Amino acid sequence: MIRFECDYAEGALPEILDLLVKTNMEQTPGYSVDVYCDRARQLIKEELQSSDADIHFLVGGTQANKTVIQSVLRAHQGAVAASTGHINTHESGTIEAGGHKVLTIPSDDGKITAQQVKDLLHGHFTDPTMEHTVQPGIVYISNPTENGTMYNKAELEALRAVCDEYDIPLFLDGARMGYGLAAPDNDLTLADYARICNVFYIGATKVGALFGEAVVISDNKLKKDFRYHIKQNGGLLAKGRLLGIQFIGLFDERKLYYKVSQHAIAQAMRIKTAFEEAGCKFRYDSPTNQQFPILPNDIMEKLGEKYAFSFWEKVDENHTCVRFCTSWATDESNVDKLIEDIKAVF
Amino acid sequence: MIRFECDYAEGALPEILDLLVKTNMEQTPGYSVDVYCDRARQLIKEELQSSDADIHFLVGGTQANKTVIQSVLRAHQGAVAASTGHINTHESGTIEAGGHKVLTIPSDDGKITAQQVKDLLHGHFTDPTMEHTVQPGIVYISNPTENGTMYNKAELEALRAVCDEYDIPLFLDGARMGYGLAAPDNDLTLADYARICNVFYIGATKVGALFGEAVVISDNKLKKDFRYHIKQNGGLLAKGRLLGIQFIGLFDERKLYYKVSQHAIAQAMRIKTAFEEAGCKFRYDSPTNQQFPILPNDIMEKLGEKYAFSFWEKVDENHTCVRFCTSWATDESNVDKLIEDIKAVF
Amino acid sequence: MIRFECDYAEGALPEILDLLVKTNMEQTPGYSVDVYCDRARQLIKEELQSSDADIHFLVGGTQANKTVIQSVLRAHQGAVAASTGHINTHESGTIEAGGHKVLTIPSDDGKITAQQVKDLLHGHFTDPTMEHTVQPGIVYISNPTENGTMYNKAELEALRAVCDEYDIPLFLDGARMGYGLAAPDNDLTLADYARICNVFYIGATKVGALFGEAVVISDNKLKKDFRYHIKQNGGLLAKGRLLGIQFIGLFDERKLYYKVSQHAIAQAMRIKTAFEEAGCKFRYDSPTNQQFPILPNDIMEKLGEKYAFSFWEKVDENHTCVRFCTSWATDESNVDKLIEDIKAVF
Amino acid sequence: MIRFECDYAEGALPEILDLLVKTNMEQTPGYSVDVYCDRARQLIKEELQSSDADIHFLVGGTQANKTVIQSVLRAHQGAVAASTGHINTHESGTIEAGGHKVLTIPSDDGKITAQQVKDLLHGHFTDPTMEHTVQPGIVYISNPTENGTMYNKAELEALRAVCDEYDIPLFLDGARMGYGLAAPDNDLTLADYARICNVFYIGATKVGALFGEAVVISDNKLKKDFRYHIKQNGGLLAKGRLLGIQFIGLFDERKLYYKVSQHAIAQAMRIKTAFEEAGCKFRYDSPTNQQFPILPNDIMEKLGEKYAFSFWEKVDENHTCVRFCTSWATDESNVDKLIEDIKAVF
Repeated sequence: MIRFECDYAEGALPEILDLLVKTNMEQTPGYSVDVYCDRARQLIKEELQSSDADIHFLVGGTQANKTVIQSVLRAHQGAVAASTGHINTHESGTIEAGGHKVLTIPSDDGKITAQQVKDLLHGHFTDPTMEHTVQPGIVYISNPTENGTMYNKAELEALRAVCDEYDIPLFLDGARMGYGLAAPDNDLTLADYARICNVFYIGATKVGALFGEAVVISDNKLKKDFRYHIKQNGGLLAKGRLLGIQFIGLFDERKLYYKVSQHAIAQAMRIKTAFEEAGCKFRYDSPTNQQFPILPNDIMEKLGEKYAFSFWEKVDENHTCVRFCTSWATDESNVDKLIEDIKAVF
Repeated sequence: MIRFECDYAEGALPEILDLLVKTNMEQTPGYSVDVYCDRARQLIKEELQSSDADIHFLVGGTQANKTVIQSVLRAHQGAVAASTGHINTHESGTIEAGGHKVLTIPSDDGKITAQQVKDLLHGHFTDPTMEHTVQPGIVYISNPTENGTMYNKAELEALRAVCDEYDIPLFLDGARMGYGLAAPDNDLTLADYARICNVFYIGATKVGALFGEAVVISDNKLKKDFRYHIKQNGGLLAKGRLLGIQFIGLFDERKLYYKVSQHAIAQAMRIKTAFEEAGCKFRYDSPTNQQFPILPNDIMEKLGEKYAFSFWEKVDENHTCVRFCTSWATDESNVDKLIEDIKAVF
Repeated sequence: MIRFECDYAEGALPEILDLLVKTNMEQTPGYSVDVYCDRARQLIKEELQSSDADIHFLVGGTQANKTVIQSVLRAHQGAVAASTGHINTHESGTIEAGGHKVLTIPSDDGKITAQQVKDLLHGHFTDPTMEHTVQPGIVYISNPTENGTMYNKAELEALRAVCDEYDIPLFLDGARMGYGLAAPDNDLTLADYARICNVFYIGATKVGALFGEAVVISDNKLKKDFRYHIKQNGGLLAKGRLLGIQFIGLFDERKLYYKVSQHAIAQAMRIKTAFEEAGCKFRYDSPTNQQFPILPNDIMEKLGEKYAFSFWEKVDENHTCVRFCTSWATDESNVDKLIEDIKAVF
Repeated sequence: MIRFECDYAEGALPEILDLLVKTNMEQTPGYSVDVYCDRARQLIKEELQSSDADIHFLVGGTQANKTVIQSVLRAHQGAVAASTGHINTHESGTIEAGGHKVLTIPSDDGKITAQQVKDLLHGHFTDPTMEHTVQPGIVYISNPTENGTMYNKAELEALRAVCDEYDIPLFLDGARMGYGLAAPDNDLTLADYARICNVFYIGATKVGALFGEAVVISDNKLKKDFRYHIKQNGGLLAKGRLLGIQFIGLFDERKLYYKVSQHAIAQAMRIKTAFEEAGCKFRYDSPTNQQFPILPNDIMEKLGEKYAFSFWEKVDENHTCVRFCTSWATDESNVDKLIEDIKAVF
């Protein structure tokens, strides 16, 4: 079985494993206050072109989302998100377990607009009985979204402007940020993210590392006591240096974070083209490493004999939307085979 | 200003105040283990035709909803509700503050169907990645709903059947239950509610008392340790007898609970008819004490000079849906005036 | 059975019931934004000699404690309290249910000292691994304490000074505040409480009302969005005016709050003297309405045949500490009988 | 600086890194349903001599404690623990953040007795006002304890018997279990732990792995829906196989888990003897990898120039208790140096 079902099917970049092996028997203090974490922070700050962001390393995305939101909100506040947002659909209610409602904005493709957010915020803060409802306290978006779509710079800036108007932070989930940075037509840099978002994170679990998400807090008001929240949410890794070492591997002079992302996108575009040329429609217009072709059911079954991909949703009696993912680890020859088979089955 | 904006604008039935005054200086133990609470429980059990239900008295509806749901759910579970449900829209996120997501089913008129619930439960329990999402753990409905509409007996029984199929309790919010019992075409009795629902409550705050909701737990599995949850949620009233005494006033041989509800419904129907005869459309087809006429904006403003009613929603540029409520306390002569004015302004 | 077991065995002052009866059929808006609540706030502000405190009315003490603490703390913070504090011992874990640890300071008599608080705060904020522990975020005390003892003005000012040093609010539970104000040697006024505490409440449930606690927020930083927290904690009473009316009854020109408290203290002192003259020792040196004599077990049993009082704790094989409470409602003739019987049994 | 300050200063056993490197580019499904996790579960079950335990792999101890406790307790329940217990002192209130009070039993050396637990449970369940307090719902212990001390088999069986009497599960934190198994006089096996505890975990973070704790659920009643709780607490590692592979490394035919533990204990005993021979007293009588000598302050400072160890507590003006840890990674030659220096400074 050749796996395209997700972007976390393999381990890590060999260069990262090498670093782990090389540093293995060194002794460092725990909990991410070691020299490796410091070095990784320094490298990331260079990418951000910002010397005063706070950077914290967490193990996974659900943990990062919960920790950031928990640290920002007071008890009566909730997190605004697309109805399709990961915190609303695929984190087992961890935001609610922390006491906060997810205030959803309808979205078909994973994106929400500044106008939608403005309407929601305006509606709340002009409601004379507002205290009977949950106060929006943070806006959560992801880029790329869970549906492979992308916000551009202007859209993010518009979202931030609305957030500023209501003094609410903008939080961006970058679990697949690398793939977004490498997407055709992308006009955002890490420095842009740091400037536009009050807080965001750079995902590595899906982009070359064994695990790891680097939370970047640009907004001074959100920096205080963040490590308490990491610990309280079970995210303060004892051997914290493992996170630092991996981010060094991604952001040192080799800039592997960008390179492997480009590889994944190149492979995704090849798959996209193959499906397009076979006459497929797509559920979302994705320039990123997740592709959502709509397949006739018999073709889906035939491809499924050899390739693992994800069921996304039933489109009609005879068609199904599925998800193919590429990643830093995608083997070009496997994509060759897939493309050949696509040509053959249609 | 004559108030029709809600059903809690006045104090309580004079008969209830009399009882409070008469018993005022008696000494009883606190926390609802006194003789008055016991007597009230007995009277309610007679209505329920059930000797083994557990009955607990709480002060208000939000408290009752939170306490019941909190007592039933484990940490990974959520409460299924109509998108319009009170717990989803008007309780400041108290369910989420207790750690639980509200899993909404789209509803326009406040009701959800057995089929909708079945689809949601089936979808969850057949999802191979179900543990990434919130497990439905209770189904919450209200009758009458927040929109004045009513479930009939067959509909409730169908909902319970689906709940039983998935071993999930059915919880019914009866904040306006009295008005439902008095509604034209109602085919439900308190005994039916006790039989069909695993747990429900009989609202008194809006039906003649100063405050008070009687939670009825029919399902043995849900009875254990309920008083801890009342206390933890700040609902164990020190002078608990105040609740017992008020429910005695509603359910003793005078059966005021039913009588005052009939009064409210009679007045609501008069208002309904007046708007109908004036050519108004209604937002919901309500047989209960809440009526939702759609008014031309100029007429709305004119009526608003003399009467308080609630804004419900904008219908179009020129029309607005508003809510008129009657209650146990509605003065017939005020309704006379309103009807006259309706005739005049249209 | 003559009841001295608690201070909430009866209903309310007849004057308060009168007000409730007189205003019963008036129509007011719900949720404490009515004229009666406004008037009550005005009357209380006069007592506080402060025009800019925020005043909110809640039904009970557990609800008040939970709501205040929930509104103040961020997720990683806890509430400092005496080990004997009500929030630590008798509220079914409502603070923890809201996500916060109670950080206890050992106390035998219900009081904690400024030095103890300073040591705890200093210890935390100088601990290099502080983020592995719960950050103190509010200091909770009660006056009178749960053990009948009292802080004087200098002690409260010292506590506030420590709190200010660490920028942490001081919160005072005044469930029995009236009885404290009437205690011999008391040197505090309501205006002092408003000046010294960042937030506190004036209890009425135990001091003449059916129910009710008036939360006073002096600190501007704590005022924002408090009504959301009331609602979320199920404390926004639909017929909120019931609270306003009762506080009017206590604080209008008759100043019943003070008068009935003086009555309760006078009766408590008579009981205290009777036990003292009988040679009893006391568990705590209480100048308030709760008295904690240590009784030989046989005498305890004999008195128990005629009087209800509370078991407090076993002292040794032959002696038990019990609690006698007086209140606004204590009948002088019942105290006469008790004193006679004390004389007889010893 | 030679580090003895904790048992997580290095990476992982080279054999474990080898396995990670070898399997790195294989494709597996995520979230611990892969062949490596299955194989690890099988190996652990052989050690447990139990084929029907459920085994789940989590990243760290705080996460494991929170997830287990959260999955077991209803909202009104709390976790019984030694006052010194990790969940009470060093997890930033994560248990309370999940809504539950930690009900502490005083302990000086980290252990609690069956009698203490029985007294607490008996006290609660015979208290007529029990619903005003938190109901004990689980008993948490650790072995070895945070103070290096150990329960023996009879003590654990006595604790379980009390738990059974009150139908409350016994949960054992085995973060340092390996070192306990290798301790002189230990009479427990993994099979004993599986038999005696309702749920426990085998720690690997401190015993040879990069990270990882294997939660073993023996009690059928506690198995249902556990994966939801892992996910909700941010603990469902995307590349879950990393956990499986590491536990294979510890429990395959090489039995490294036991071997490296024996190494750590041998080194700890050498350090212990050196301090003893120098005339030191110890704060706790520890047969495990943590040693707590009480040092004259000048000697502490001198040793501190060359060795990292942890401050534990001030004993008196001139003496301080410190902690020296050994681990799987402790270099024998470093211990040689330390012993020499101990001889020199005393």
